[in-house]
Amino acid sequence: MADKDKSIGIVETRYYTFAEPPDALVLESGETLGPVTLAYETYGKLNSEKTNAILILHALTGDAHAAGFHKGDKHPGWWDNMIGPGKAFDTEKYFLICSNVIGGCRGSTGPASINPETERPYGLAFPLITIKDMVNAQARLIDHLGIDKLLCVAGGSMGGMQVLQWVVSYPERVFSAIPMATTIVHSPQQIAFNEVGRQAIMADPNWDDGNYYGRRLPVKGLSVARMVGHITYMSDASMKDKFGRREKNEKGPFKFGAAFEVEGYLQYRGDNFIKRFDPNSYLYITKAIDNFDPSDGQGLTGILKGAPTRFLIIAFKSDWLYPAYQSQEIARSCKRAGVDTIYCELNSTYGHDAFLVEVDEQTHLVTHFLQRVSEGVRET
Amino acid sequence: MADKDKSIGIVETRYYTFAEPPDALVLESGETLGPVTLAYETYGKLNSEKTNAILILHALTGDAHAAGFHKGDKHPGWWDNMIGPGKAFDTEKYFLICSNVIGGCRGSTGPASINPETERPYGLAFPLITIKDMVNAQARLIDHLGIDKLLCVAGGSMGGMQVLQWVVSYPERVFSAIPMATTIVHSPQQIAFNEVGRQAIMADPNWDDGNYYGRRLPVKGLSVARMVGHITYMSDASMKDKFGRREKNEKGPFKFGAAFEVEGYLQYRGDNFIKRFDPNSYLYITKAIDNFDPSDGQGLTGILKGAPTRFLIIAFKSDWLYPAYQSQEIARSCKRAGVDTIYCELNSTYGHDAFLVEVDEQTHLVTHFLQRVSEGVRET
Repeated sequence: MADKDKSIGIVETRYYTFAEPPDALVLESGETLGPVTLAYETYGKLNSEKTNAILILHALTGDAHAAGFHKGDKHPGWWDNMIGPGKAFDTEKYFLICSNVIGGCRGSTGPASINPETERPYGLAFPLITIKDMVNAQARLIDHLGIDKLLCVAGGSMGGMQVLQWVVSYPERVFSAIPMATTIVHSPQQIAFNEVGRQAIMADPNWDDGNYYGRRLPVKGLSVARMVGHITYMSDASMKDKFGRREKNEKGPFKFGAAFEVEGYLQYRGDNFIKRFDPNSYLYITKAIDNFDPSDGQGLTGILKGAPTRFLIIAFKSDWLYPAYQSQEIARSCKRAGVDTIYCELNSTYGHDAFLVEVDEQTHLVTHFLQRVSEGVRET
Repeated sequence: MADKDKSIGIVETRYYTFAEPPDALVLESGETLGPVTLAYETYGKLNSEKTNAILILHALTGDAHAAGFHKGDKHPGWWDNMIGPGKAFDTEKYFLICSNVIGGCRGSTGPASINPETERPYGLAFPLITIKDMVNAQARLIDHLGIDKLLCVAGGSMGGMQVLQWVVSYPERVFSAIPMATTIVHSPQQIAFNEVGRQAIMADPNWDDGNYYGRRLPVKGLSVARMVGHITYMSDASMKDKFGRREKNEKGPFKFGAAFEVEGYLQYRGDNFIKRFDPNSYLYITKAIDNFDPSDGQGLTGILKGAPTRFLIIAFKSDWLYPAYQSQEIARSCKRAGVDTIYCELNSTYGHDAFLVEVDEQTHLVTHFLQRVSEGVRET
């Protein structure tokens, strides 16, 4: 999918630190966090009017490295097929920003960061964070970059929740919004899948109440959590296409080894996840997702009434983790609130992963949407 | 749901032991197992012609106690709402038999049983068993009870797989079959969910390669496995009805305690599962389910050609673990094979659990089907 020739090329992660105590960031819980570092990347150039900035928001296990290549890396950023010269988020037209969320483990302040009070990793002393807290921290980064209004905020899954929270928290700072494969509030089934992941991590004795830094890591617990996640990101059909019931060649004498390819794949992806993800971050971020409910169960209509933001909402028919009906609810709320809204339901078979994979249709939709929004911005 | 007045009343589990070495049961793998004990219960009376026997087949975590009450128990057997006087499987008309599968842990020989060679629990020395092995063992019990032909074999989920295997292995011994909420072969998604459960158990250090008997049990691993299972047994809609986003009252200071009711429910069901289920049995039985493929990927049509068995196939629209399309495939194969088949897809919202819950519609279907089959038997 990733065409190196069309890539933005070599990129670097940068870091912005703010909220040095006593000016710590006040969280939704009332607790404070500081200093706060955000890892972020930018692609393309901010125009002189500062009207072409787009904020890309990542999902649960994503990071700031959305596009291009880090020096020496073979694989590009996680949304490189959507961000680059001539791509959906065209770096020749727009200035793209992507930052790792707080609570994360990919350069931004999270439970693995050093707690200034103890000079040791926070672990569970890290305060509970919310999607709103993530967005408030991002807003500080946008201030720092000298940007008043964002042309667009876009993202899938938890990225889509941040998109919705941006519109709710800072409606005057967001010209347009692209929430993809997401929801305004988690269903009990969605909470339940996250809870299984958390329980798997906490069941691992190496987790040790989150105090595993510098010691043996809860690799197996995190692996099981990741395996559950992977199943929910794919669809029945896409798993059939990818694995069928093909058997694994390396069937050993162990009765419960991976007999089918799908088992080997999940084990491999699970076992490798520890290399790039902190188990405590998995706990904190899934909790933030489960608690996300910006309208307090009331739906978005009231909150969005009169909002100037234009919406492009994208859902996927085979996504059973974030079923299309949840995106339809967002679209209905927007329309009831009189907000300019396009809703598109794509016929992908890739399940929830579709927002990372269905490049062609998304490119078509996003390109035209951003063009229309840009024209609107130039007219104002 | 369970009306004590209509219950069959007090019942007892019985045990049948056979295949004493050297006449051990030869398994599909070529390995042997013996002696083999089957725990079983019977309800109602076998008629003098021995033409009214129905074999009930249980699902993954079920047992021989399908109906009535064990002395002193408050709760009846797992399918008491379907089996009893005047119920779908009417104990005033039929002789019901239900036996715990081999590999299980509810009285039948399984990995927790004593290995006669070592005089210690088998653990992983227990041979891999298949659905066909389970059915072959049941056939020995049916012989023992002096029954030549079964009026019907019926069951949901893994019980439905045993139903299909009965028809494939012993077509001349089965007048009719009721496979419910089942499939002729597991999809990779279904394998994947089982594999997550297995990995969760094996990730628990107390599992200790299956040698935990008499020591600390892999409680946490089994609990995570059970939590995953529970999610797949319910539907998005039924979880919404049951839990919504209601918060749990006992929210404690622990950041990752059960904040939502759904989390507390899953944890409770997970933690309690160890009281009635052996983790090694969970490994063996899920493996048997994943490996089930009586037609070797070819579909049932060829195997069933000319089979005298009548089918009533029941599926549920909201069952996403065993989606209706899998039952439709069974129905199509039956019809192509010229087998007398009724296919019913019920509008339940209970997900996979529906076969345990949707009593009224199932009773209607099963009652009429059994009546018709009984008439056919009397005519022959």
